[in-house]
Amino acid sequence: MPLGRLNHIGIATPSIERSLELYRTMFGAEPHGPPFDLQAQGVRVCLVDMPNSQIELIEPLGSDSPVVRFLEKNPAGGQHHVCFEVPEIHAARAELGAKGARVLGEPRIGAHGTPVFFVHPKDMGGVLVEIMESPRA
Amino acid sequence: MPLGRLNHIGIATPSIERSLELYRTMFGAEPHGPPFDLQAQGVRVCLVDMPNSQIELIEPLGSDSPVVRFLEKNPAGGQHHVCFEVPEIHAARAELGAKGARVLGEPRIGAHGTPVFFVHPKDMGGVLVEIMESPRA
Repeated sequence: MPLGRLNHIGIATPSIERSLELYRTMFGAEPHGPPFDLQAQGVRVCLVDMPNSQIELIEPLGSDSPVVRFLEKNPAGGQHHVCFEVPEIHAARAELGAKGARVLGEPRIGAHGTPVFFVHPKDMGGVLVEIMESPRA
Repeated sequence: MPLGRLNHIGIATPSIERSLELYRTMFGAEPHGPPFDLQAQGVRVCLVDMPNSQIELIEPLGSDSPVVRFLEKNPAGGQHHVCFEVPEIHAARAELGAKGARVLGEPRIGAHGTPVFFVHPKDMGGVLVEIMESPRA
């Protein structure tokens, strides 16, 4: 499995609106589309395009969101995860698991409409890694 | 100034060799070239290619390296910065400064041979942002 395309960098924020205002003011950037809820993952999401990748702004959705604890440690927000694409999610999960990486749960549909899973940062040099099946062109 | 290309994500590590071994084992990734020292910035650097961007592994060079404190807080390493490209470094620095972003020092030559500067994470939603003049094609 080669190191795939960097689909996005995930940036946690206490307020997607304030982050969008920041990117608009500083860089003239507009969101790819309106923010939307990913109920199953407990996050509200908004994508911002770069020419070669995306920023995924994530805000907690509900008090048991996995992003709440991140924001307790980093109240201003910060870099939360990076997301690499793979051609086929189940093969990737089996391969990384066989190599000893702690895979967090079963694949589920992510913000881009294709299945994703996360790998524990302890097995990825301190980086929370999301593995995402590439969108079909 | 539009949001430019994501040149790289900067990942701090206590050991570039161990990180390379991790990326090799998990993803079959090989470094873009051998590690090298950026004395002026107090870091040892190694680049790893993705199809659309790069990972910049950074390891402290010397005990006064700016990465030492990051690793004290994150002993396993972790996401350190993100780097966006701009067409012209001085114009970008003036513009971001005029908009109230705290720019950290004068532009200096970065790991890719073009001038860079950093912007304080307090003005970038908790994210340490490197601004880099695009390499000439």
